Amino acid sequence: MSEPPLSEFELIRRFFADRDRGPGILLGVGDDCALLAPRRGQELAVSVDTMVCGTHFFHDQPAESIGHKALATALSDLAAMGAEPLGVLLALTLPKADEAWLSAFAEGMGALVDQFRVPLIGGDTTRGPLAISITVLGQVPAGLALRRDAARPGDLVVVSGALGGAFAGLRAEMERRDVEEGPPSGTDPHCQRFLRPEPRLALGKTLRGRVRAAIDISDGLLADLGHVCQASGCGARLEADSLPQDPLLADWPPGEALAAALTGGDDYELLFAWPARQRPELRPLAAALQLPLTVIGEFTTGPGIEVLDAEGRSVASRGQGFDHFAADD
Amino acid sequence: MSEPPLSEFELIRRFFADRDRGPGILLGVGDDCALLAPRRGQELAVSVDTMVCGTHFFHDQPAESIGHKALATALSDLAAMGAEPLGVLLALTLPKADEAWLSAFAEGMGALVDQFRVPLIGGDTTRGPLAISITVLGQVPAGLALRRDAARPGDLVVVSGALGGAFAGLRAEMERRDVEEGPPSGTDPHCQRFLRPEPRLALGKTLRGRVRAAIDISDGLLADLGHVCQASGCGARLEADSLPQDPLLADWPPGEALAAALTGGDDYELLFAWPARQRPELRPLAAALQLPLTVIGEFTTGPGIEVLDAEGRSVASRGQGFDHFAADD
Repeated sequence: MSEPPLSEFELIRRFFADRDRGPGILLGVGDDCALLAPRRGQELAVSVDTMVCGTHFFHDQPAESIGHKALATALSDLAAMGAEPLGVLLALTLPKADEAWLSAFAEGMGALVDQFRVPLIGGDTTRGPLAISITVLGQVPAGLALRRDAARPGDLVVVSGALGGAFAGLRAEMERRDVEEGPPSGTDPHCQRFLRPEPRLALGKTLRGRVRAAIDISDGLLADLGHVCQASGCGARLEADSLPQDPLLADWPPGEALAAALTGGDDYELLFAWPARQRPELRPLAAALQLPLTVIGEFTTGPGIEVLDAEGRSVASRGQGFDHFAADD
Repeated sequence: MSEPPLSEFELIRRFFADRDRGPGILLGVGDDCALLAPRRGQELAVSVDTMVCGTHFFHDQPAESIGHKALATALSDLAAMGAEPLGVLLALTLPKADEAWLSAFAEGMGALVDQFRVPLIGGDTTRGPLAISITVLGQVPAGLALRRDAARPGDLVVVSGALGGAFAGLRAEMERRDVEEGPPSGTDPHCQRFLRPEPRLALGKTLRGRVRAAIDISDGLLADLGHVCQASGCGARLEADSLPQDPLLADWPPGEALAAALTGGDDYELLFAWPARQRPELRPLAAALQLPLTVIGEFTTGPGIEVLDAEGRSVASRGQGFDHFAADD
């Protein structure tokens, strides 16, 4: 029942010392609470995510990539609401003081802090098994937040970027670890997919006012689309051939590649419900954002999700939280 | 690298299902973020705290008391800012699914949720070594937050409640564990002191507009008063005989009892800087709150903290983060 080592949060704090203010932050790190003042007419969005060593990252994973991913996945929740980041709180549990690890971790977080101007405004460090819990706060104009419960039958199902890359990268890394030792490579494209997701904050912000429903793909396309369908009281029909599969899946057997794109998870792309009559506006939007936006199907009256091949045959489906693949039959 | 068991957060969510709304909460559990709208003219206060098994609580401690303490200590940070609670996010890491443990834990949190009307608005569950990270959000009228940096020389140093009880209780429990097995008692007064701190939210709210500087006593009186002095650029002089020692210290050797009251920590009482000319108003305030409020000294131009006995001799001091006891000489 010992007290936490304050010096570790001090180290983190020093690292972010010149970055702990931003618009809307009245008081940053160093008091019992941080104080924020969202702009008038804005609602406050808040979310918390935890990453645990051995569950969400490898014990020997570069600390920089852990810092990146912890903040990137938390920011992804703000993106999925259409919120702009205001600030971040870091609760870091460490088995022992390790200045080199802390510096690398802070560097990974710091790059995103700078990129998205989301200051570290609070947190703490505790002694225990390595885990990172990040709380992000953002703001979104009143009434414009992108919610899970606002998709309507007839809306197009659109996803950003490519799918299945994080899953493919992770599988390749697991196979490598079966035959060789050492941490994942910081530069290998396979590793990049699961080590360095990019929060789609610019896309989320752009969707405000155009779209009412969105989610980020963390659990996998079918699972997260299922969350939207369940909250919205509708279903969805997807075209298997239209899924934007990650290039890493190019040499996979087609059935396995499809399964990876449908269920892989950890890609942190956005999925949203785009009004069908505004379909022509998608292409210029994608061009402006320099990010692929792909129509993969449409929302239906449901229930359930159906994935069809080019001949209209069902190749996969999802009912009450249950994924079914035709290939399993 | 398995996915978290959603069913566990579902269980927590069901437990709090009818309590996830409150004034200012637009969207509770179940989307990528919760959405809040603080009242007009209010600033938002936010803080995060982590408790780790083996560091902050015993592995066999009743789950109800862990739920209570995790939320109580987080709410204490809002109290120390003079903020009213708006909502709470729970990041819970569990080694395995255990419905009985989860129910008891949720019950411990739930009693405070009801008492202070602070709804659970989000969070997640992950698989890993037992740890609880709680984010609390509150609101405070613009400009009235109680800060660490606003104490002035001449202000009285006032503390609520009694000091050293949590330390005395914990020591008694450690001694018991040396000779017998089993979890700490849920009813023993020693255990109550460290198992069931009470967040001083009513006091914090009452202090707004009367006081500018406050902190909660989590690290120990000298350490937390030191934080205020450092942030405010002043020092303090305390009278040892005026410290409100917990009754559990009554049969301790006087020097040890004093050390416990000065450095024990974990009491979660508030310490604040009260204007000297308003000293007569303290007693009626304490009566109204039914909570002892004790003048234990005054802020000085500093630097450092000096603790004096009845004859004016120094019995303890704190310089640059260093506690010194005369008895050590």
